[in-house]
Amino acid sequence: MTPLPVPGGVTAARGFSAAGVSCGVKKTGPDLALVVSDRLASAAGLFTTNRATAAPVLVSREHLRASEGHARALVANSGCANACTGPAGLEAARLMAAETARAVGCEVEHVLVASTGVIGVQLDTRKIGTGIIGAAGALHRDGHAEAARAIMTTDPWPKEHAVRVETPLGAFVVGGMAKGSGMIEPRMATMLGFLTTDAAVPPGRLRRALTDAAEDTFNAITVDGECSTNDSVFALANGMSGVALDERGDEDFVEALRGVCRELALGIVRGGEGATKLVTVRVTGAVSYADAKAAARAIANSPLVKTAVHGGDPNWGRLVAVAGRSGSAFEVGRARVGIGPVVLFADGRPFDERAPEAARQLTGREVTLAVDLGTGGPHEATMWTCDLSADYVRINAEYRT
Amino acid sequence: MTPLPVPGGVTAARGFSAAGVSCGVKKTGPDLALVVSDRLASAAGLFTTNRATAAPVLVSREHLRASEGHARALVANSGCANACTGPAGLEAARLMAAETARAVGCEVEHVLVASTGVIGVQLDTRKIGTGIIGAAGALHRDGHAEAARAIMTTDPWPKEHAVRVETPLGAFVVGGMAKGSGMIEPRMATMLGFLTTDAAVPPGRLRRALTDAAEDTFNAITVDGECSTNDSVFALANGMSGVALDERGDEDFVEALRGVCRELALGIVRGGEGATKLVTVRVTGAVSYADAKAAARAIANSPLVKTAVHGGDPNWGRLVAVAGRSGSAFEVGRARVGIGPVVLFADGRPFDERAPEAARQLTGREVTLAVDLGTGGPHEATMWTCDLSADYVRINAEYRT
Repeated sequence: MTPLPVPGGVTAARGFSAAGVSCGVKKTGPDLALVVSDRLASAAGLFTTNRATAAPVLVSREHLRASEGHARALVANSGCANACTGPAGLEAARLMAAETARAVGCEVEHVLVASTGVIGVQLDTRKIGTGIIGAAGALHRDGHAEAARAIMTTDPWPKEHAVRVETPLGAFVVGGMAKGSGMIEPRMATMLGFLTTDAAVPPGRLRRALTDAAEDTFNAITVDGECSTNDSVFALANGMSGVALDERGDEDFVEALRGVCRELALGIVRGGEGATKLVTVRVTGAVSYADAKAAARAIANSPLVKTAVHGGDPNWGRLVAVAGRSGSAFEVGRARVGIGPVVLFADGRPFDERAPEAARQLTGREVTLAVDLGTGGPHEATMWTCDLSADYVRINAEYRT
Repeated sequence: MTPLPVPGGVTAARGFSAAGVSCGVKKTGPDLALVVSDRLASAAGLFTTNRATAAPVLVSREHLRASEGHARALVANSGCANACTGPAGLEAARLMAAETARAVGCEVEHVLVASTGVIGVQLDTRKIGTGIIGAAGALHRDGHAEAARAIMTTDPWPKEHAVRVETPLGAFVVGGMAKGSGMIEPRMATMLGFLTTDAAVPPGRLRRALTDAAEDTFNAITVDGECSTNDSVFALANGMSGVALDERGDEDFVEALRGVCRELALGIVRGGEGATKLVTVRVTGAVSYADAKAAARAIANSPLVKTAVHGGDPNWGRLVAVAGRSGSAFEVGRARVGIGPVVLFADGRPFDERAPEAARQLTGREVTLAVDLGTGGPHEATMWTCDLSADYVRINAEYRT
C-alpha cells in the first residue's frame, strides 16, 4: 500500500513521546530535544565517516554495540557540536546519556546521544543536565514539533514527516525529524535524523532498512560538500502497532522509511544555507551506478553550476565541463544536457535557440538538471542540492561573529 | 644562482615577440594574443584532464606529437572557449592554426592554439582570421603586456613574470604569462599559461621540467575546484641565449621555470573571482605526499573554510572537520591547527584565548592555514587558494547575462 502522510513527526508512531526545551547552550530558543519510546525498541544508527568523529557519535556507537541494537531514548542538543573536545568532551557525552537514563528510568546503554552546533567548544553539562530533567518532565505524545525545533541550528524551519502504511499484516506508522543546514554532504549517514516506527523490526533488519533508505535520500543530498563531524541518523522500532513484519511487509517498511527519509532530506536541501531553489540532478547513460552517482555528486557540488542556477542562467556548458572532470566515463559527442524538459546540448551540438525556454525553467523554486553521460550505459543516479547564493557566504562568514 | 626578476613577461627571453589585438570575439577589449619565436623552439604542453576536452587542446596535442615537440608560434583568444563545439569547433581550431602559420610563415604543426571564455559557442573564424593578420603585423619585442591583456576573461589584472638566471654556462631568461580566474583547479596543467626561455632545452627535458614545475605551482592552486575544459600550459625554449644546459644547468632551469610558474599561479589565485585574500594551506604530519596534498586540496576547496577566512573568523573547527573528511589518515588527538603562527588546537585541546590574535592574522591580504594531521608521518604539501566572497556568487550568477 502507498504510505499516506500523517501529522505527528517523530511522535506519530504509537508509544513515542518527545519534548524540546531551552537549557541555555544556545543563546536563545530551544536547544535540547528528548524522544522516548514507552518500551525498549530495536535501534539502528548510521554515522559520519569523518575521521574527526565527535564525542556523541562515539558514545552512541558504543551504546548500540553494548545493547545489541536496542534503545529507549534519544537525546540531542543544538548550539554545541561537542566535537574536537578531547577526553572532556567524551566525558560530557557520557554524562548526557547518564542524566537521560536517570530521568527516563532506563539503562544508560539504551540512550543514544547527538549534538550539533559549533565545533571545538566544551559542552556545558550543568545546563544540559538541567535541560534533560526539564525535558523528561515535559515529555508528551504531541511533543514532536518542539523537539524538531530544539535540534535546529541555522535551519530556517523544522523538518518533520510521518506516514501511515496499511499492509495485509496490519497498519503501522513511520515518522521522523531532522536538522540541516550547512556542512551537508553526508557520505554514510547525515546531519541529525531521528526516525521512529511502531512496527516490530528486529535490530539487524532495521539497520539494513535504514542503510537502504539512506542511500538514495540522506546520502543523495548536498548543500556545500562538507561532511560533518557529527552526522547521525537513528531509527527506533518499538513494535507497539502490533505489526511484526515478515519479508513481504519488510518491503513496505523500507519503502515507508525511504519516503520519510526523502521528505526530511529534501527539506534539508530546501532549507540549505542561503538556498532559494531545490535542484534535482539526474544523471543517466553511465557505465556503472558509482559513475552515475560520482557525476551527479560533482555537478551537485559545483559552485559554477550552483551560481548559474541561482542567477537563472541556463549555462549548460558548465554542466558538460563538470561531467567531464568528474572522473566518470563520459562521451561528449553523444552526451545530452537538459534543464527540466528542455534539451540544450545533444550529439555534440548546442540548441541555443532554446535558452529562453530553459531560463524560464530556472525561475521556479524547483529545478531539474538532466545529464546523459553518452556512454550508452544503463546506469543512473539522482542527487539533490540547492543553489549557491551570496547569503550562503554571508551566513558562513558571520557564523561565530 | 638565484633567479632575478626582470621585466618583459613572455617576451623577456631573447628571440620572442608578441602582440595582443582586438578582433571582436569579446564585446570589448583585446581578445587575440600571438607569441612568436624567431627560430624553431623546443616545445612542451600540459593539458586539462577534463574528458570534455576543448578543440584547441586536441589540436595543440596533435601538433606537439606531429612536430616531435617543436613550435614557432602560440596563438590564443579569449571570449570563446571553443569547447563542446563538435566537428565545427575542431575545424575552427585547425583554421586558427593554419591562419597563424600563414601569417608567421611556418609549418602549421609548429603552431600551438588555445582558447578561453564561454563554453558551447562556435568560434567566429572570420574575426579570428582578421585578428591573426593584425597581430602578426603588430608583433614586437615588447608586446608582452598587450598579449597578457588579450588572454584575460574575468581576470582583474594581467599575470606576467620573468627571471634572469646566471649559470657557469652563461645567462638565460625564463618568462611567461597566464590567465585565471574562475573554473580553476587544474589537475594536470592549468588555465592558460605561456612560458618562454632562450635557454636551449631539448623537447623531452623541457616536458619533464614543465611537469615538475607545474606540480607545486599550477597544480597546487584552486579558486573554485573546477577543472576547466581548456586548461593548457605551454613552454617554448629557443636556445637564443646560446646557453645549452647540461645536468647541472638543468636544475637551475627547473628552479627558474618553477619560480615563474609560481608567480603566475599565485597571481591567478590573488585575482580569483571575488577573491580578497591569498590563502596558503600548509599540511604536515601526513603518512604520504598524496595524503598531504589531498588534505590540503580539501581544505583549499572547502566553502566553509573559505567563507570563514573571508569573514575573518578563526574557525579552526572547520579545518579539523575538513581534514577529517578528506580521506587522508588523521589523528584528531594529536593533530595541530594554526592560523599564521597562532596555534589554536593541539593535543586534543583548543586554545580559544588566542582567537583574537588569530583573527588579527586574518585581516591581512595573505593568510596561512597550517594543519598537522597528527599521524607523525614526515610528508607535507602546500596548496594556494583564495577566500569565497559574495562577489564570487555575483560574478558567476551573472556571467552570461
